[in-house]
Amino acid sequence: MLKIDLNCDLGESFGAYSIGMDGEVLPLISSANVACGFHASDPVVMARTVALAKNAGVAVGAHPGYPDLQGFGRRNLKVSPEELTAMVQYQIGALRAFCDANGIVMQHVKPHGAMYNMAGKDAALAEAICKGVAAVDRGLILLGLSGSMLLRAAEDCGLRWASEVFADRGYQADGSLVPRGMPGDIIHDEDAAVARVVRMVTEGRVTAVTGEDVSIRADSVCVHGDNPRALAFAQKIRDGLDAAGVAIAPLRDLIR
Amino acid sequence: MLKIDLNCDLGESFGAYSIGMDGEVLPLISSANVACGFHASDPVVMARTVALAKNAGVAVGAHPGYPDLQGFGRRNLKVSPEELTAMVQYQIGALRAFCDANGIVMQHVKPHGAMYNMAGKDAALAEAICKGVAAVDRGLILLGLSGSMLLRAAEDCGLRWASEVFADRGYQADGSLVPRGMPGDIIHDEDAAVARVVRMVTEGRVTAVTGEDVSIRADSVCVHGDNPRALAFAQKIRDGLDAAGVAIAPLRDLIR
Amino acid sequence: MLKIDLNCDLGESFGAYSIGMDGEVLPLISSANVACGFHASDPVVMARTVALAKNAGVAVGAHPGYPDLQGFGRRNLKVSPEELTAMVQYQIGALRAFCDANGIVMQHVKPHGAMYNMAGKDAALAEAICKGVAAVDRGLILLGLSGSMLLRAAEDCGLRWASEVFADRGYQADGSLVPRGMPGDIIHDEDAAVARVVRMVTEGRVTAVTGEDVSIRADSVCVHGDNPRALAFAQKIRDGLDAAGVAIAPLRDLIR
Amino acid sequence: MLKIDLNCDLGESFGAYSIGMDGEVLPLISSANVACGFHASDPVVMARTVALAKNAGVAVGAHPGYPDLQGFGRRNLKVSPEELTAMVQYQIGALRAFCDANGIVMQHVKPHGAMYNMAGKDAALAEAICKGVAAVDRGLILLGLSGSMLLRAAEDCGLRWASEVFADRGYQADGSLVPRGMPGDIIHDEDAAVARVVRMVTEGRVTAVTGEDVSIRADSVCVHGDNPRALAFAQKIRDGLDAAGVAIAPLRDLIR
Repeated sequence: MLKIDLNCDLGESFGAYSIGMDGEVLPLISSANVACGFHASDPVVMARTVALAKNAGVAVGAHPGYPDLQGFGRRNLKVSPEELTAMVQYQIGALRAFCDANGIVMQHVKPHGAMYNMAGKDAALAEAICKGVAAVDRGLILLGLSGSMLLRAAEDCGLRWASEVFADRGYQADGSLVPRGMPGDIIHDEDAAVARVVRMVTEGRVTAVTGEDVSIRADSVCVHGDNPRALAFAQKIRDGLDAAGVAIAPLRDLIR
Repeated sequence: MLKIDLNCDLGESFGAYSIGMDGEVLPLISSANVACGFHASDPVVMARTVALAKNAGVAVGAHPGYPDLQGFGRRNLKVSPEELTAMVQYQIGALRAFCDANGIVMQHVKPHGAMYNMAGKDAALAEAICKGVAAVDRGLILLGLSGSMLLRAAEDCGLRWASEVFADRGYQADGSLVPRGMPGDIIHDEDAAVARVVRMVTEGRVTAVTGEDVSIRADSVCVHGDNPRALAFAQKIRDGLDAAGVAIAPLRDLIR
Repeated sequence: MLKIDLNCDLGESFGAYSIGMDGEVLPLISSANVACGFHASDPVVMARTVALAKNAGVAVGAHPGYPDLQGFGRRNLKVSPEELTAMVQYQIGALRAFCDANGIVMQHVKPHGAMYNMAGKDAALAEAICKGVAAVDRGLILLGLSGSMLLRAAEDCGLRWASEVFADRGYQADGSLVPRGMPGDIIHDEDAAVARVVRMVTEGRVTAVTGEDVSIRADSVCVHGDNPRALAFAQKIRDGLDAAGVAIAPLRDLIR
Repeated sequence: MLKIDLNCDLGESFGAYSIGMDGEVLPLISSANVACGFHASDPVVMARTVALAKNAGVAVGAHPGYPDLQGFGRRNLKVSPEELTAMVQYQIGALRAFCDANGIVMQHVKPHGAMYNMAGKDAALAEAICKGVAAVDRGLILLGLSGSMLLRAAEDCGLRWASEVFADRGYQADGSLVPRGMPGDIIHDEDAAVARVVRMVTEGRVTAVTGEDVSIRADSVCVHGDNPRALAFAQKIRDGLDAAGVAIAPLRDLIR
C-alpha cells in the first residue's frame, strides 16, 4: 500500500504568546516539526508539545531555525557554516531532551523558514546542516524540499532523507517551487491542490506552471494548523489521499 | 587512595565577547561545567568548549542557568517549578548534542549562579531541577553545594550526587556558607585555604567561622579560571592535594 | 466636573505574535501604557501602537518592564537600583522616539508587572525608577498603585504622579490590594465593581475586605483589552462613570 | 583652519562582558558612536558610556545595529524598510534618554556593521534609515561611508550628513572600498595610512588601488579603540593631522 507522511510545524507559541491550533491539527498529521526555541517556542512550550505529540501518536522532529524570535526565523541571516552546524546541533539536542523525558525517539529534522530556504539553494549551508545532524545522531531523517540542496547534502552525508512537497504551491519545470509573488505561485483551488498531491504520491509527477509534466518525489506533504481554514484543508488532503488508497504514515515507516 | 574532583565553570564566552582562560585552566581540573546558552555561551562556543575539554581529558557537565544573559544568570528570577524543570532539560539536551558530536558522555549537571543558590535553599526548586535531570538521563550526577537542598532532592529522585566545597569561603556551624558580605565570608590566606581543602578531603571536617569543627563532605572543589591569580590559586590547591596524597579525579571516578 | 482617567496596557504584540484587542479598547480609554520592547513589543509594534493611539486621541505613556519577554515581565527579577534606573530610562527614550515621530508628547510612565509590584513595596527600587524618569523628562507623570512606594518616591523626586485603582480588586484596611489568592482578592460582581469605582472617584473611599471604609485616591482606573469580556467590562465602567457625572479625561487634564 | 572629526565605536560591553578600551580612546577622538543595545551594550553600559563621553568632551552619536547580539550586528539580516525605520528610531530614542539625563544633545547617527554596509548599497534601506532619523530629530547628522547610498538618502531627506573615510582601507577607482579579502583591501603601512588621511582632508583626494587619483570627501575618520595597537594608530593619525595643521573637531563644528 502506498504511504505518505503529513507534516506540520508545531509548538510555536512563546511565553504568554499563543500561536497555532496544535491540539486540533495533531489528529490530522503523522509527523510534527517542533520548534526549538530559536525562531519560536520556549522550554515549557517544548515540554508540552512533545507530550501532546506523543499522546497523539505523532512522530516528533526538530524544527531548528535562526536565532530570530522577532522575525519568526523568516528573515534571511548570513551565518557561517560553523555557526549553522552548531545552532542546528544545539536545537536538536534541546528538543531531544524532551523526547527522552517522554520516552520517545526523535524521528527527523526539518529546518525552518529562512534556514530551510537558504540551505535549500546553498550547498555549503546544506552541508553544514547535514554534517551537524549526522554528527549528533545518524538515525535522524532530514526532511527538506523536494529536489533541494538539502536532500543532496543529506545523501552525501549518509543521512536518510525525505522529500517534502507542497499541496498549494506551483512548481516550475525544473521541479523547484514557483517563487512567491510570481504568477502561479499558489494553487488557490483546493480540490485541484488535493488532486495534485494525490498524483504526486501515486504517480510521482506534477504539472508545472508552464504545462510540462515533471517528476517529483513526495515523501511528506506540508500542512498548516494555524487557522480553521488550514485545518479544513489538511482534512481535505487526508480525505483525498484516503480515497485514493494512500495511507498516512510517519516518515520512519516510509524511509528506510 | 583518596580522590577529589576539581571543577570549574567553562565556555562562558558569547559571540564577540570573550571571558575566561579556558585553555589555561583545563590542565588543572578534572570536571568542566559548560555553560549552555542561557546565562552565557552560544552554540559555537559550546561546540568549541566541549571539543577543548575532550582533548584535555576533562569530564563535561552541563551548567544550566537562568535565561538572563545580561545578568550572567546571577540575578534571582522567580520561575515556577514547571519552568525550571523545562529550562534545565532544554539546556542539558543542548549541551549533550555537542557531547554526542564529540563522542563523549555527559558526566554531571551543576546549576549556575542564582539558580544554584535559589535551588540550594528551596525544596520545590531543587526538586524541579532533579526530577528534570532524572527524566532526561538517570546517569547524570548532580553537583551541588554541600548540605544543600539540591543534594537532598537528588537523593530523593534517585540521582547520584556530588557535594561541592569552596576553598576560599568560610563555613557556618551548620555547614552552610557564611553569606557574602558577612565577617569571615572569604578566606583570604591562600595557604590556609589550601590547608582547609586538604582537611575537608582527608578528614571530612572544616573549622566554622565560629570556631567549631564541622562535618563536611567534599566530592569536588570549585576553582576559577577567569584570571591569572585564580589560575595560580587553582594550581596551589592541586599542589596541596598532591602533597597530601590526594588524587584529582573526575566525579564519575568518585561517585558510584 | 469630576474627572477620572481610564488607562490600559497596549501594544503588547511581538513579531508574529499578536496579543490584545488594541483597536477595540482605544475608544474606551484616555491613556495608553505602551510596552517598550523589554517584556513585550518590538519597534514595529511600538511605531504602529503610538500612531494608533494618536489617531484615537488617547494619551501615550511608557510601560517599561523587566527584560523578560519569555515571562512577559511578570517574573520577579532582582535588579540593582542602577540597573533599574537605566532600564527605565532606556525604555522611556525608545518609546519617546515614536512619540516624536508622531508629533505627540509622552504623558506618563507606568511600570509593568513585576517591576510595578516590586517597586510598589521597595523604597530603593521606587526611587531608582522615579529618579531615572525625572532625569530624562521632569514633565512625565508617574502612574502607580494608590498608596504605594512608587507614588511616595515620585513625590520625593518632584515628579507629578497619579494614583491608580482597580475596579475588580479587593482592598485591605490599609488601602493596599488584597493579595491574589486570598479571600476577597477579586470583585466578581461587575455591577458592584463599577459602583466601587464610582465611589472611589466621587467620595474618595472604598470598602475594605474587612468591612472598614478606607480613603483612596483615584486618578486612573486600570482596564484591560485582551478579550471581549474585558472590553465589555471597560464599557460598563465608562457607562457607570458617565451616569454618575464623572468625565473620562487623560492624566494630563487631571494632574497639575 | 581645516578640520576633521575622529569617530570611534564606543560602549560595546554587555553585562559581565567587557569589550573595548573606551577610557583610553576617548581623549583621542571628537565623536563617539555609542552602541544602543541591539548589536551590543545594555542600559547600564549606555548610561556609563554617555557620562564618560560627556566628561571627556566628546560628542555623542547613536550607533544603531541589527538585533543580533550573538553576531555583534555583523551578520547580514534581511529586514523590511518598515522594520529598519522602526529599529533605528527605537535605538536613537533609547540613547537619547541618556543624553537627556546627562544634559547633552545627541549629535549624530552612524549605523553599525551589517546595517551600515547593507544600507550603504541599497537605496530602500538607506531611505528607511534616513526617513526614520529625520522623523525623530531633524537636527541629527547622518554619518555614513563616503560616496554611499546612505549619504545620498540623507541629502534627499533633508538631513545633514557627514562622509566617513578609513585610514587603513584601500579604495577603488569609483571611490568605494576595496572589499575585504581582495588585494589592496588593507593599508598595512601605518605611515602611509596616516599620509593618506592627511591628503584626503587637505586635498580631498586618495590614490585608488588601481593607481588613479580619486576625489573623496573626508568629514570624519573612523578609528578603533579595542586594543593597544589600535590606540597607538589612532594617536598616530591625530599626530599626523596635527603636523599638517588640521584640527580635530566634532561633526557639529564641521557640518552646517
